[in-house]
Amino acid sequence: MRLKDLAEHLGLSQTTVSRALNGYPEVNEATRLRVAETAARLGYRPNASALRLATGRSGAVGLVLRGADELGPHMSEFLAGMGGQVGAQEIDILVVTVNSLEDELAAYRRIAASQKVDAVVLHSPTLRDQRAELLLDLKVPFVLHGRTNIGEPVAWMDIDNTGAVERATGHLLDLGHRRIALLNGLKGRTFAEHRELGYLAALSARGVAFDPALMGNSIFTDEIAFRQAQAMLELRPRPTAFLAGSMMTALGVFRAIRQAGLELGKDVSMIAHDDVFPYLNADNMYPTMSTTRSSIRQAGMRIAELILQILGGKPVQDVHELWPVELVLRQSSGPLQQ
Amino acid sequence: MRLKDLAEHLGLSQTTVSRALNGYPEVNEATRLRVAETAARLGYRPNASALRLATGRSGAVGLVLRGADELGPHMSEFLAGMGGQVGAQEIDILVVTVNSLEDELAAYRRIAASQKVDAVVLHSPTLRDQRAELLLDLKVPFVLHGRTNIGEPVAWMDIDNTGAVERATGHLLDLGHRRIALLNGLKGRTFAEHRELGYLAALSARGVAFDPALMGNSIFTDEIAFRQAQAMLELRPRPTAFLAGSMMTALGVFRAIRQAGLELGKDVSMIAHDDVFPYLNADNMYPTMSTTRSSIRQAGMRIAELILQILGGKPVQDVHELWPVELVLRQSSGPLQQ
Repeated sequence: MRLKDLAEHLGLSQTTVSRALNGYPEVNEATRLRVAETAARLGYRPNASALRLATGRSGAVGLVLRGADELGPHMSEFLAGMGGQVGAQEIDILVVTVNSLEDELAAYRRIAASQKVDAVVLHSPTLRDQRAELLLDLKVPFVLHGRTNIGEPVAWMDIDNTGAVERATGHLLDLGHRRIALLNGLKGRTFAEHRELGYLAALSARGVAFDPALMGNSIFTDEIAFRQAQAMLELRPRPTAFLAGSMMTALGVFRAIRQAGLELGKDVSMIAHDDVFPYLNADNMYPTMSTTRSSIRQAGMRIAELILQILGGKPVQDVHELWPVELVLRQSSGPLQQ
Repeated sequence: MRLKDLAEHLGLSQTTVSRALNGYPEVNEATRLRVAETAARLGYRPNASALRLATGRSGAVGLVLRGADELGPHMSEFLAGMGGQVGAQEIDILVVTVNSLEDELAAYRRIAASQKVDAVVLHSPTLRDQRAELLLDLKVPFVLHGRTNIGEPVAWMDIDNTGAVERATGHLLDLGHRRIALLNGLKGRTFAEHRELGYLAALSARGVAFDPALMGNSIFTDEIAFRQAQAMLELRPRPTAFLAGSMMTALGVFRAIRQAGLELGKDVSMIAHDDVFPYLNADNMYPTMSTTRSSIRQAGMRIAELILQILGGKPVQDVHELWPVELVLRQSSGPLQQ
């Protein structure tokens, strides 16, 4: 059954029916109820075109990226997940690239003014994210990939970064490791702060002192991780285990371990966070890589669904999802060598 | 100097000045000359906003991807290059995901009708590309990443795939290899046909017969390459060298070689095509990987520039660029073992 048929059956315009179904305030309560009941009785399901008819919106979701480098392997997997979901609804993704936070804020103002997008995905939020505050002011609907605390309810989906790192650190401590390095994301980003909390909680639970020399904060690239791990491996006593923030980070750490003449899984252990890149399979590595695993492509798919839900009228305070993270033990993590 | 100042100085509207500078036919020749001379004398340089004022266009470049999987590592590097260039001009990228060629053609019709984009990047063209024909009909400006032959001039930028594979194959033949496998892209895609031509030309120049069992055609993933290489390594006589279509392909071939108990660079040689992914550095592999190298990010940057040029009025028949490809020899390719 099409919107047209339902509207004819009710003797109302398609726009009114669509607005009624999507909870728009212009439609009075009696009409809304009559439309809802008739739709339910006749088995009508609204589609994206009907939603657009109701809203007069643009049919695009925005994604603002700071620096072209943000369009790296993490973002492309996330986009692939999003793209599959929104593409099926004929909704496009508007990618905007900027060079600074200032430019990013200006870009949100620009796309809000031009009504180029119906909603925005906000990624890698900080603890108190200015961009989220601006989007609330601009009344641009958005879903956070991650979390922020700005004192107002926002829609978000996140993975349990604290729990993941706490379990991984705890496991390495169980194996006897005491010098455990954490290669973490940028300070101030919520996910990195959450990971740090998990790391500190696990150390503190076993009475192991925190050594700031064993923590790195940076974006996740092979090259940066290589240099960080290289410097840490020159410390005495050196770290005997690494927590790598992503598979890209893990590649760099692995290189530093090899260069130091050490063997991964014997002399040094590693657990990496695996976003499940199809071309960097932890099972295919040599040695196979122990990981905390959560598919960033699945996250992209889910965030696209959540955006469609909030565009359909779901209150943002009802859109909060925290995904657990698996710990998958393989050859790269083993007992401390005495 | 701003467009506004130039227009005031000339006593003309900003729109007229902008159209004159961008070669629009509505402006008569005398005015065009006066504007051009004054602009040159006063040192005025038009910016992207002035271009938009002239054209009334949307400020977005479109990219239609078939299947979310096309948003893989190759496309994200390409997008990162494009994004950096167009972002500086406040031009966005509209990413549209579809599931079939039919849907892709429909998507071009939809974005042309809605004027959501000013131009389109057409990627992975086929030998006679229907999408290019449609875009010509729809009068949507586009630049091809690759080449097609549809009997009308189109703007394109490509790398010399034929020359790259011919040189790599020739080098392996020089090293004594005769059973050389080619893991190529999908049949019908121009770049894959060009690579096949280079391969066949090199074999034929040394009088080596072509064995169809040594050629694979597929998308470039670790997993597919693993299975193709595994099957080829069971042939007798087995291949002694591989040409891998991408670094992702190379990872799969490497895995198959290891699984067969063979050693890369000794028992089996490999030369891979390297699109220069920052996280898969051929120098950091173990053994280091011989490659034909051309940065797909640079290609994305250049295509963005070419799009801005054709939007600025440059004739498409003047936008043809063929980039040479480097051959970089490292440890993964060596003499045939007797």
